[in-house]
Amino acid sequence: MEKAVVTFSGGLDSTTLLFWAVRQYEVNALTFDYGSKHNKREQAAAKEITDRLKIPHVIIKLPFVNKFFKSSLLQSGREIPEGHYEDSSMRSTVVPFRNGIILSIAAGYAESIEARTVLYAAHAGDHVIYPDCRPEFLKAISEAAHRGTYLGVEIKDPFIDMTKKEIATLGKELEVPFELTYSCYKGGKVHCGKCGTCVERKEAFQLAGIPDPTKYRL
Amino acid sequence: MEKAVVTFSGGLDSTTLLFWAVRQYEVNALTFDYGSKHNKREQAAAKEITDRLKIPHVIIKLPFVNKFFKSSLLQSGREIPEGHYEDSSMRSTVVPFRNGIILSIAAGYAESIEARTVLYAAHAGDHVIYPDCRPEFLKAISEAAHRGTYLGVEIKDPFIDMTKKEIATLGKELEVPFELTYSCYKGGKVHCGKCGTCVERKEAFQLAGIPDPTKYRL
Repeated sequence: MEKAVVTFSGGLDSTTLLFWAVRQYEVNALTFDYGSKHNKREQAAAKEITDRLKIPHVIIKLPFVNKFFKSSLLQSGREIPEGHYEDSSMRSTVVPFRNGIILSIAAGYAESIEARTVLYAAHAGDHVIYPDCRPEFLKAISEAAHRGTYLGVEIKDPFIDMTKKEIATLGKELEVPFELTYSCYKGGKVHCGKCGTCVERKEAFQLAGIPDPTKYRL
Repeated sequence: MEKAVVTFSGGLDSTTLLFWAVRQYEVNALTFDYGSKHNKREQAAAKEITDRLKIPHVIIKLPFVNKFFKSSLLQSGREIPEGHYEDSSMRSTVVPFRNGIILSIAAGYAESIEARTVLYAAHAGDHVIYPDCRPEFLKAISEAAHRGTYLGVEIKDPFIDMTKKEIATLGKELEVPFELTYSCYKGGKVHCGKCGTCVERKEAFQLAGIPDPTKYRL
């Protein structure tokens, strides 16, 4: 099987991507700790999931982000807003060019372990407030990785045209242990139920008609 | 004056870029420590130069590169080859997708400090062995930064068509303190005189007819 690097947060989307990827690639999971309020809790989820799949899992620490970048998502930032993911208030949660940074590192790591493919779980619902989730951005960063590596690394986003509801449906088919995934921006032990990602998560299970196994604080 | 972030190693090219940039931008210098054998020595040079120019200077540490990436340039790598910069033996010094990673971080940092411009000192001689110095790569990463940030950050490479000889000539015009710059891959107190960058550096001064103020070990 061909090697692939999967950028993997431990959330619903990237866990579904991981379960999809292990059927066709020799997968190396790559998780980023950029000093967000929820990174530590995410990592515990990510570790449990990669342990279950018995695949290699590397955590890349990026302490400079929390130190020098501005975002309410970061430990150094102000309070995370509540509400719908697509509200303009959620813009404060954007970490400047986060996905550009993550995907560039993933491309360099891929070249280091001789993998030609990086997989990334951007989906249709991400585009509204995050400029670095949009198809035009992803096309350009993939071109940069392809041109800027000897192997011609390709960054692929197989879920780019899917809604979160469709990802949840695919996850169910792939028997993803949804109860292990974590995505709340607040980083508490259980999901807060009120931040943008929690609202989006609840909605996805509801729309897909899948029982939501998540424990919400509220 | 408009703000710009200059990716700055303390070497001949990026120091000349810095002296060029301070005439037209409010400059923030950004240096990367990715665990190479010469990063610490470079940083001492970089600090002296930014102190002289009295401009803000931030050092970004990337410990994951030395830990997880493969290159003879890294502390974790094997010995650095000697010879001409363009020799195929120098390929072992490539840090996978280093410039993609550096420029992505610079773009995110630029957005964090509300700068629309990132300046980078790639030049015509870099293209041969480094895929992430080629114009096609730079065009793609600039497009990615432009698309993936709210500000539409532009990555500019004003020296991309210049030879190192032409950069040295420009540096002389701009009164760059060449004796403070450092670029040797081996990271010793003085330049080794034998590695790819030393050979290239000597050649640039010679071709430009500029007295070379560098202290070489040999």
